Formats: sequence, structure tokens, C-alpha cells
Amino acid sequence: MEAKRAASDGLRPGEAALSVEPVPAPAKLYFIGRIFTPWATREECPRQGDLHGPLCRVEIAETWVSALVGIQSFERLQLLYWMHLSRRDLVLQNPRQGGEVHGTFALRSPLRPNPIASSLVALERVEGASLFVRGLDCITGTPLLDIKPEHCPRA
Amino acid sequence: MEAKRAASDGLRPGEAALSVEPVPAPAKLYFIGRIFTPWATREECPRQGDLHGPLCRVEIAETWVSALVGIQSFERLQLLYWMHLSRRDLVLQNPRQGGEVHGTFALRSPLRPNPIASSLVALERVEGASLFVRGLDCITGTPLLDIKPEHCPRA
Repeated sequence: MEAKRAASDGLRPGEAALSVEPVPAPAKLYFIGRIFTPWATREECPRQGDLHGPLCRVEIAETWVSALVGIQSFERLQLLYWMHLSRRDLVLQNPRQGGEVHGTFALRSPLRPNPIASSLVALERVEGASLFVRGLDCITGTPLLDIKPEHCPRA
Repeated sequence: MEAKRAASDGLRPGEAALSVEPVPAPAKLYFIGRIFTPWATREECPRQGDLHGPLCRVEIAETWVSALVGIQSFERLQLLYWMHLSRRDLVLQNPRQGGEVHGTFALRSPLRPNPIASSLVALERVEGASLFVRGLDCITGTPLLDIKPEHCPRA
């Protein structure tokens, strides 16, 4: 059992981790910008973003600024960002709020094999390479991976 | 202007690309599984997923199967996957359907610096390492990056 070889440091009861034996994808991420929020530590971060929460600044790297053309017409955006402080080896987790142990894929915890967060944000304004948005939940300095118009699934 | 050094192959009028001068993130992705759909080529893929569309199979790599614990209690899941065939250097795009040129971040096109797709899917059933879902839009064989319970933003 992979889980038996788990590193046990910092785990809560019932949690399990494994040695991530990387079959690393031949895929590299580019950080296309950085997110600035009022939260300097993970402990300060809200558990979930709030579209009426504090204004945050998303700074786009110069290389990618021209990819923002047309962005101001959207009220809502989906941001993907890289939770760079997260351990990536947990398979079972025991949420801090207590309750049951869950598999990583049954949780939106930042601790996951590919720590990519996805948040819906309200776009307030665009100023050059900066987007001002509400709805984020991450610590300041978090690397940005992608910006997409809000997704409206056909229900 | 970065855009002036664009590779011009395969571009439609008004489109622009740049030399992605990688500031590669120190971040590697793990492919945690693979998605099997009825679509063998990009041309066959629907433009957008449909929660009543065809049943697709998501196969989780053995290493990560225990991270599925609890997943069956969700009707809707968010899947993140890697659009491995996409070029990553486009900053301006001219959608096939015609219309205006848009910045990459104002489109949900698969062509983006980090070609991570995010889809909401309806979970039909779980069988061992396989999830059967509806709502996908990608070609068969697409690498899976993450599974999360559906996000319900506080509006």
C-alpha cells in the first residue's frame, strides 16, 4: 500500500500521505503574474473567497499584458493560481474544522497533488497591468496561472 | 514589443503570438489520471461541455485512488485537466466562430500560457479507479490534473 509509506509529520488523526513518486508531466507551468491580497500568512486567509470581500490586486507579467485585451467587459472572472506553500502528498485529510476524514479529491483543501486553486472573482477595474478584484482567498504573493471569463455551464 | 517577435505560423487575421521566454515556474505538474471521451480529434470536440452530454470515463492513477474517499457523495465535480495539444504562446486570438480579436485571457480557448481546462461535470458513478461523468469537452487521452467538489461561491 502506497499509503503505508507515508511521511507522518504534521498529520492529524486519520490522515494519510504517500511518497509522491513523480511521474512528472512533461509540462512546465509559467507564472503569468502575481496576486496581492491583505493576507500575509495562511492562517489569516479566509477559508473561501467572498465576492464582497476585500479588494485584491492581480499583477500581470509584462510579457502577457496584451493578452488582457477585452477583459474589462467581464464582471466575473475565473482565476487559477498556484498554492506554492502546499504539501502535495496528502491522500486523506482531516479538515481543521473537525469532522470526517476525506480523500483529497473530495475536499477543496489547498493541499493536493497539483495545488491549483480556482476562484471566481468580481472584476472591479483594470489599470494597465493590474486587475482589481474581489473574491480571493490566498496569501499575498501567490503566483498566477490563468485568467478566464466566468464559465457558464449549460445546465 | 514582444508581439512583434511573434511566430506567425497558423495565425488568423489580427492574432498575435509571442516568444514565450519562459520564466518557468519551479513547479512541476503530476498527471493524476487520464480522461477518456468519445472524441479522438480536437475538431470533433464540442466547444463547451454539456452536463447532459455523453458519458466519459476518468481513470485515476493507482497512486491516487485512495484520495477518492468520499467523492461519491458529490453530484457535481470540478475537473482540471491539461490540454496537452495546445500552443501556449498566443496573446491575441481570433475565434474560429469569427468576430473580434480578443486577448487570450478574455477567452476560454484552450490555447493559453498554461493550458489548464476547468470543467464542471455531473458525476454518475464511481467504479474503483474510474469516475463516470458528463460535461467534458476534451479529446480522449487528456491528462487529468485535479478533481475538486463543485465550488459554490458566496454571491
